[in-house]
Amino acid sequence: MRRQKKFYAWGYADEDLTPEEIRPWEAEIAQRYGLSGFDVKAPPRADEIVLRKSRVDVPSALQAMVRTDHLTRLEHSYGKAGFDTLRMFMRSVPNPPDAVAFPESEEDIVKVLDWCDRIGAKAIPYGGGSSVVKGIEPSAAFDKVVTISTRHMDKVLEVDPVSHAARIQGGIYGPAIEDALRNTPFTMRHYMQAYRCSTLGGWIATRSGGHYATLYTHIDDFVESTRVVTPEGTLETRRLPGSGAGPSPDRMFIGSEGILGIITEAWVRLRKKPTFRASASVRFRDFHAGADAVRDITQAGLYPANCRLLEAREALPGIPWDNEEAVLVLAFESPDHPLDAWMKRALEICAAHGGVADESDDDENAHRSGAAGAWRNKFIRAPHYGEHAVARGILSSTFETSMTWERTRDFQTKITKIARDTIKAVTGREGTVTCRFTHVYPDGPCLYFTFGGVFDPKKDALAQFMEVLSTCTAATVEHGGTTTHHHAVGRFHRPFYDRQRPELFARALRGAKRELDPKGMMNPGVLIDP
Amino acid sequence: MRRQKKFYAWGYADEDLTPEEIRPWEAEIAQRYGLSGFDVKAPPRADEIVLRKSRVDVPSALQAMVRTDHLTRLEHSYGKAGFDTLRMFMRSVPNPPDAVAFPESEEDIVKVLDWCDRIGAKAIPYGGGSSVVKGIEPSAAFDKVVTISTRHMDKVLEVDPVSHAARIQGGIYGPAIEDALRNTPFTMRHYMQAYRCSTLGGWIATRSGGHYATLYTHIDDFVESTRVVTPEGTLETRRLPGSGAGPSPDRMFIGSEGILGIITEAWVRLRKKPTFRASASVRFRDFHAGADAVRDITQAGLYPANCRLLEAREALPGIPWDNEEAVLVLAFESPDHPLDAWMKRALEICAAHGGVADESDDDENAHRSGAAGAWRNKFIRAPHYGEHAVARGILSSTFETSMTWERTRDFQTKITKIARDTIKAVTGREGTVTCRFTHVYPDGPCLYFTFGGVFDPKKDALAQFMEVLSTCTAATVEHGGTTTHHHAVGRFHRPFYDRQRPELFARALRGAKRELDPKGMMNPGVLIDP
Repeated sequence: MRRQKKFYAWGYADEDLTPEEIRPWEAEIAQRYGLSGFDVKAPPRADEIVLRKSRVDVPSALQAMVRTDHLTRLEHSYGKAGFDTLRMFMRSVPNPPDAVAFPESEEDIVKVLDWCDRIGAKAIPYGGGSSVVKGIEPSAAFDKVVTISTRHMDKVLEVDPVSHAARIQGGIYGPAIEDALRNTPFTMRHYMQAYRCSTLGGWIATRSGGHYATLYTHIDDFVESTRVVTPEGTLETRRLPGSGAGPSPDRMFIGSEGILGIITEAWVRLRKKPTFRASASVRFRDFHAGADAVRDITQAGLYPANCRLLEAREALPGIPWDNEEAVLVLAFESPDHPLDAWMKRALEICAAHGGVADESDDDENAHRSGAAGAWRNKFIRAPHYGEHAVARGILSSTFETSMTWERTRDFQTKITKIARDTIKAVTGREGTVTCRFTHVYPDGPCLYFTFGGVFDPKKDALAQFMEVLSTCTAATVEHGGTTTHHHAVGRFHRPFYDRQRPELFARALRGAKRELDPKGMMNPGVLIDP
Repeated sequence: MRRQKKFYAWGYADEDLTPEEIRPWEAEIAQRYGLSGFDVKAPPRADEIVLRKSRVDVPSALQAMVRTDHLTRLEHSYGKAGFDTLRMFMRSVPNPPDAVAFPESEEDIVKVLDWCDRIGAKAIPYGGGSSVVKGIEPSAAFDKVVTISTRHMDKVLEVDPVSHAARIQGGIYGPAIEDALRNTPFTMRHYMQAYRCSTLGGWIATRSGGHYATLYTHIDDFVESTRVVTPEGTLETRRLPGSGAGPSPDRMFIGSEGILGIITEAWVRLRKKPTFRASASVRFRDFHAGADAVRDITQAGLYPANCRLLEAREALPGIPWDNEEAVLVLAFESPDHPLDAWMKRALEICAAHGGVADESDDDENAHRSGAAGAWRNKFIRAPHYGEHAVARGILSSTFETSMTWERTRDFQTKITKIARDTIKAVTGREGTVTCRFTHVYPDGPCLYFTFGGVFDPKKDALAQFMEVLSTCTAATVEHGGTTTHHHAVGRFHRPFYDRQRPELFARALRGAKRELDPKGMMNPGVLIDP
């Protein structure tokens, strides 16, 4: 039996934070923002939320796979951003899908798309629903909308043990991929915070970023070929380790966010499970010193699997908020060879920048203990805190971007100041802003900002949330960054994306979409207007 | 003063093969094919070739940058494939461009495109003219055609020493990039056989493959951002180390082969010049044993800079043609650290597959001596032999593809047989077919085939050439490969490309092109029809 995901917040109902997790977090938040206590709002029950009546009639031939019941529509109305949970707490869901289809095959998808075409409905492809950018949220402008969940197309179909690749259906969740590979020497190892409730098809459609901090950062690097059902037919690209034949067809679908079709299958690259590991955590006097070390490591061609630079106060328990230190979570892994030479050189580079390695971390299980382990646990549990922040009137969210190294320090300083100033201006109180590097390249890092504050109880919380988040995101684009490094564009990032990407590219993409989706039914308004 | 390139064959007039190079090669060819001597045809003089009168009148405002003289038009009529040289020897150039423009700026390009638009001419972007796939050859179907050479847009504009990147104009030749970087710690290091007579813009437009045998194989991996002049305007993408904002705009222009616009600038990733090197050549009893070792090396995550697997008889002097041995040219390089651990493990893998390393190669200068050096020299000089083969009635050419490992052995055997059978059927004599891996990925190699034979003097040589090459290339696509790994599609590969790429992708690309080039003036017939 399928475990029930919360309709109003991240995760499954049976894995909520324990009181032992909540209490210290509450105390820390109270101290950080000078609060004496919390008025804790109750999470919504599904029956408290009124949905507009469905505007479609499901034909009898589709009734087995299309649902219009209250809970199903509610579950598919929002993604899992803080502002989604906040709106659920407000019992406000004005634009639910009119129906949710659960096709079990490409033929089923074609039937659903044909039906959408007949009734003039928009179609929203839906993987795990973990979007934090309104990627799967129906627009108020849609007359009718059918969400198409791929969750029944969830098999690993084939494993190629020679080329280290697998043919996998788009609707499979992360853990099911690794489960299916359990009795093989292989792993996909594309982990991200949303791993447990997101799908391969969703990763490809949104250009997800995963476990590897260098080299194989985005799903783009894993995709060997794709299969896509579009309103004009189904297409499949060839399995090729490399090609120079015209612009890459896969790269047109990677990041297409459902506007061109539904990704039903892909061949993805696997690797052997790592049997050698070298892990360390390294403390730096401040973030900039750590950043210089990280830059040198990436430019040295060492390619660590993990190379996350964190502010110590964000990453580690018990660090006071005025501590400026940074910690680098560094790891190499290999199925083939000991990593001493790699780690030795990386630590030399760190030391040259004043980094002090935590020796106790340098063992086989270090990735699950010490600073790395503390961070790993925090990373996995973090999304669960969202609803508890919302329930307590706490503003808490993230945004991410990337920037070339030569501008990174100045950029980070500017964006941090803008975020702090905006929180103060909007909520009337000081907030907190931290930054980490989640993925790093020879030419620059992905900067991942986390911010927090306390909503002004006299003003609309949602308006405050959106103003802070929008101002920060707009600033990243205005100062030369990307509106998203691995969270996709969706309807939320769209105005910032419009400023970032060349208008002529938008026209080209529109031209491509018109060919594959002539009636403009696929997830309109995401990425481009019709 | 600019050195004069040969209009009819590869390279510059002042660097032809010496008699000391020609003689042993002639002897080897004669022995291989059982010939007693050669009737050596004279190369064409420019005045022996009659060109159709130019069909355009250059307006006075453009006369300073547009040329219609005989030699300029002749030089820009063909690329540098064997069949191009053969047609030059036949004194047959039925479709020269009507004019060749040499813009010095984007404004100049806009003026030329406006002119093409006014007179209804097709425009062919032209970098170094080293295409081997009819990528810059005017079609007989064009009423008027203006070739646009970017060769005056040839500067390194900016070097970013922090992010290791440079902003470079599209018309620059390979060596000029490295010259401009001479007084910096950096190198681009994207070398290929056509390096000296090809341009950055051409590399991007054709998805060139370069020096690095793993990881940074294609120009795709170097491009940080692009600037493109299209008939609808100029666009520039952002410098970003990584992004997840929609499908990559750069990836639409990388491989666009001039159908969307002219690539005038790009930010490309550099790296520090290598100061540490470890090189070896490893002999294997046969190619398949070597292939197994190469596969293990790529899947081990060792990322050698060089990892070329060659048939010994093709690569090394004095190896008899019935010798089945293979040689792996293996090298690691780094600006940062000694490579002993990397090389040690790679050689262990080789030894496990029976590979015997040539110890003498394992020193600092090994890449210029021993087997690696012999191969390197042969690699650089190889294109110069093309005209001498043609002059002697020798069929000689190459084709390349890629394939996932699990099918590689069978594929290679089939393609080799097809190539041999085809040469025999077409020329009436046994030919030779060899294969090498030029680039390798965890999921498969690029297979690069070289073939040779003797034209049947009683039949049309060009028809024989095209039949052999087309049959071989068609076979690579029919058996699941790509029509090209790094030579681009052009007009020659087009029929095979059509079979390989999904028709819906062709439609999408057509839709994109219509937006950027509504009148279909940019290099039509390459990649797609209007």
